Amino acid sequence: MKRLIFACILTLVSVLPAAAQEVTDTVLDNGMDVVVIEDHRAPVVVHMVWYRAGGADEPAGKSGIAHFLEHLLFKGTDDMEPGEVHRVVAENGGSNNAFTSYDQTAYFERIAADRLELMMTMEADRMRDLILTEEDIKTERDVILEERATRTDNSPGALLNEQMQAALFMNHPYGTPLIGWRHEMETLNREDAMAFYRKYYAPNNAVLVVAGDVDPDEVIALAKKHYGPLEPTEGLEPRARPLEPVPLAPRRMTLTDDRVGQPYVIRNYIAPSRATGAQEEAAAIVYLSELLGGSSATSILGRALEFDQKLAVSTFTGYSAEALDLTTFTMGVVPAQGVTLEEAEAAMDAEIARMFEEGIDPEQFERIKTRIRANDVYARDSARGLANRYGRALTTGLTLEDVKAWPDVLQAVTPEDVLAVAEKVLQPTHSVTGYLVAPSLAPSLTPGGEEEVGQ
Amino acid sequence: MKRLIFACILTLVSVLPAAAQEVTDTVLDNGMDVVVIEDHRAPVVVHMVWYRAGGADEPAGKSGIAHFLEHLLFKGTDDMEPGEVHRVVAENGGSNNAFTSYDQTAYFERIAADRLELMMTMEADRMRDLILTEEDIKTERDVILEERATRTDNSPGALLNEQMQAALFMNHPYGTPLIGWRHEMETLNREDAMAFYRKYYAPNNAVLVVAGDVDPDEVIALAKKHYGPLEPTEGLEPRARPLEPVPLAPRRMTLTDDRVGQPYVIRNYIAPSRATGAQEEAAAIVYLSELLGGSSATSILGRALEFDQKLAVSTFTGYSAEALDLTTFTMGVVPAQGVTLEEAEAAMDAEIARMFEEGIDPEQFERIKTRIRANDVYARDSARGLANRYGRALTTGLTLEDVKAWPDVLQAVTPEDVLAVAEKVLQPTHSVTGYLVAPSLAPSLTPGGEEEVGQ
Repeated sequence: MKRLIFACILTLVSVLPAAAQEVTDTVLDNGMDVVVIEDHRAPVVVHMVWYRAGGADEPAGKSGIAHFLEHLLFKGTDDMEPGEVHRVVAENGGSNNAFTSYDQTAYFERIAADRLELMMTMEADRMRDLILTEEDIKTERDVILEERATRTDNSPGALLNEQMQAALFMNHPYGTPLIGWRHEMETLNREDAMAFYRKYYAPNNAVLVVAGDVDPDEVIALAKKHYGPLEPTEGLEPRARPLEPVPLAPRRMTLTDDRVGQPYVIRNYIAPSRATGAQEEAAAIVYLSELLGGSSATSILGRALEFDQKLAVSTFTGYSAEALDLTTFTMGVVPAQGVTLEEAEAAMDAEIARMFEEGIDPEQFERIKTRIRANDVYARDSARGLANRYGRALTTGLTLEDVKAWPDVLQAVTPEDVLAVAEKVLQPTHSVTGYLVAPSLAPSLTPGGEEEVGQ
Repeated sequence: MKRLIFACILTLVSVLPAAAQEVTDTVLDNGMDVVVIEDHRAPVVVHMVWYRAGGADEPAGKSGIAHFLEHLLFKGTDDMEPGEVHRVVAENGGSNNAFTSYDQTAYFERIAADRLELMMTMEADRMRDLILTEEDIKTERDVILEERATRTDNSPGALLNEQMQAALFMNHPYGTPLIGWRHEMETLNREDAMAFYRKYYAPNNAVLVVAGDVDPDEVIALAKKHYGPLEPTEGLEPRARPLEPVPLAPRRMTLTDDRVGQPYVIRNYIAPSRATGAQEEAAAIVYLSELLGGSSATSILGRALEFDQKLAVSTFTGYSAEALDLTTFTMGVVPAQGVTLEEAEAAMDAEIARMFEEGIDPEQFERIKTRIRANDVYARDSARGLANRYGRALTTGLTLEDVKAWPDVLQAVTPEDVLAVAEKVLQPTHSVTGYLVAPSLAPSLTPGGEEEVGQ
């Protein structure tokens, strides 16, 4: 079954055109970037506004304010009622949403192409003219607290990740949870939200991405009409977050929680991103992630631990190449029944040692190269995927040229590149290893010591 | 020998008066606190200016600026040449110095009582009129970088401590090294120093402490004359640093360094301070520290690990009760030849478990109580010790009443209080455990794994 799907992908890849879309970029007089991606296959447009502001731009002690503000942006303005954006988009048959990450906050609509100006009217309006009441704050703060409860506090795995990131990043705000520390979220107020809004929600801090069945000249004319009159924020400097010192000691932690049904071991390493390293380096890490954990049947960890040794029910890796500053490379093992986390971790490390010793299987490498190419082609085949790609890149320190070059950079990676980058990234001193366990599986605890001794 | 010294202390304690000194406190119109401690036994005065600003008040990305500025305060002003403070103090037969900590920066002189006004003239001058040249910055930045090299980078133990504190404090700036991260120290500039100076070096952010052979009325008159005309900083809010989230996972780390001659295990717990907890709680932690690690011959860890079991060459504990926010409780073991760090740690934890099981030896407790009283009496017997005590307390969120009550609070602690606070503080989830090892003693490392497997 897996082989069949793989064969299908290969076929499609050879049929699809490599880069059909035209991309235009312009900067308005007030500093706003405008990127237009033509795609006339359907009479639809994706309209996105990306702000160069996210969780890592929050003032100390105000964690969660970027995400909180994202929620609040659906309240009223001088010209709109609360909830009007959602209502108008729905009434016009479109869909919309927003998200916050460490380096950016984005608002987007997908709608019939002839409604583009309506979207611009609303998005331009809420860029500078948001009105927040104390009641808005109170209501929406409860919503984000509930969101934290659901996504983080009720999830031991999310809690472990939160504690691990706090230990991994000793200085950089990527160590602070995006949703916010609960005790700080509880204190976020109207002035915190408005201060963040006034500073960062401005045309000279925004990227407009329009993708779909549009004419670039018309889009730029509309952008000038609606976004052009907005006032930029004075004195806004390029973002410069506190950087990481050299990490000197491998860190480990164990989170013990009653709710853990399935223990696992996970390790996070600090890794360069496309913006902080060369793109070539980031591309090699994409391969490393695929090679180690991409697919159960063929990846190094999957094949060895799940299939050959039957030590694991699953293995995983993860790498986010897009980040303004350093990012994280993750790997982990969910052990099979009767296998300890120590055994699982040792087996994981043994496979990595073997990779360094024996090198990379050329056949496996070629399969990954093809899969990466296929993924890229698929992503480019949707207006939304393309808009995402450009918006995210331009708000994480990359240029249009970097985006355009990326597919070729990915295809140029060699097995030697992967081994070189693995040696650089997979350093124990750059890592935090976490164990997620249930109490019955953990060493029994007494106050003052991790092991009960002498009883 | 130890017993003999102990007997002497007991004798002295009964001879010395309990609280001979008069303490006066005043607030000048510009907000400056003035504390005068009369002590006429010698014709000497200690003159101290304490600022409510330290390492934990630094802007993100500017670590080390508080300490850097302390160095720079010995440069020139509109009225003084660079180095003039040192020269004038020395020419008048006095001594002077300064220090920076997380919550305060202090400048002090000890000199003949009739030179007090001269000290005030200089200290008031440099509170608002500092002049820094680019050359000052360049020269002194090299000095602090060299200080970091000597004290931290050349000391594996200091490096381990730095990495442990960064992991212990997930959110609070106490996790940032006071000396600064090297990569940030290298970028500190004149504007960084002046911004910190202008904000925090102001009468409404300072405590003047004068102790010695002085008349309070005269001191206050002089303070009004010299410090009274200084402009306060407008809009200075009480300090509110980011607080810690609930820690959920015990953390561990191993620092491996060629230069390690003597490996050891050390554990830091987050603990309340006199300001964040009740003073009663902090007082009980002072006992806990003494009880576990105060003296090799009689402490729980010393007696068991060094004398009975011969597993350790030394054991130690540490607790700083004075902190504006949460502080750290430390314990550790330097193992004897042939004893592993794992064995040393297990033995340490076993003794703590035994303390919870068997309770506290009443005789040992009484000895500690006497020693704490003796230490207190000694500290109060020097003008400098008293000035320090008041200055530090008033810049870490305590009041004069707290300072006056502290000796009695300490004497009121019971063994039950100590066990209760031990149960609260010595929680594994609140801790980071560090191993300091030489490469020959560490598990061998390969890229990608902590253990070399399969070779």
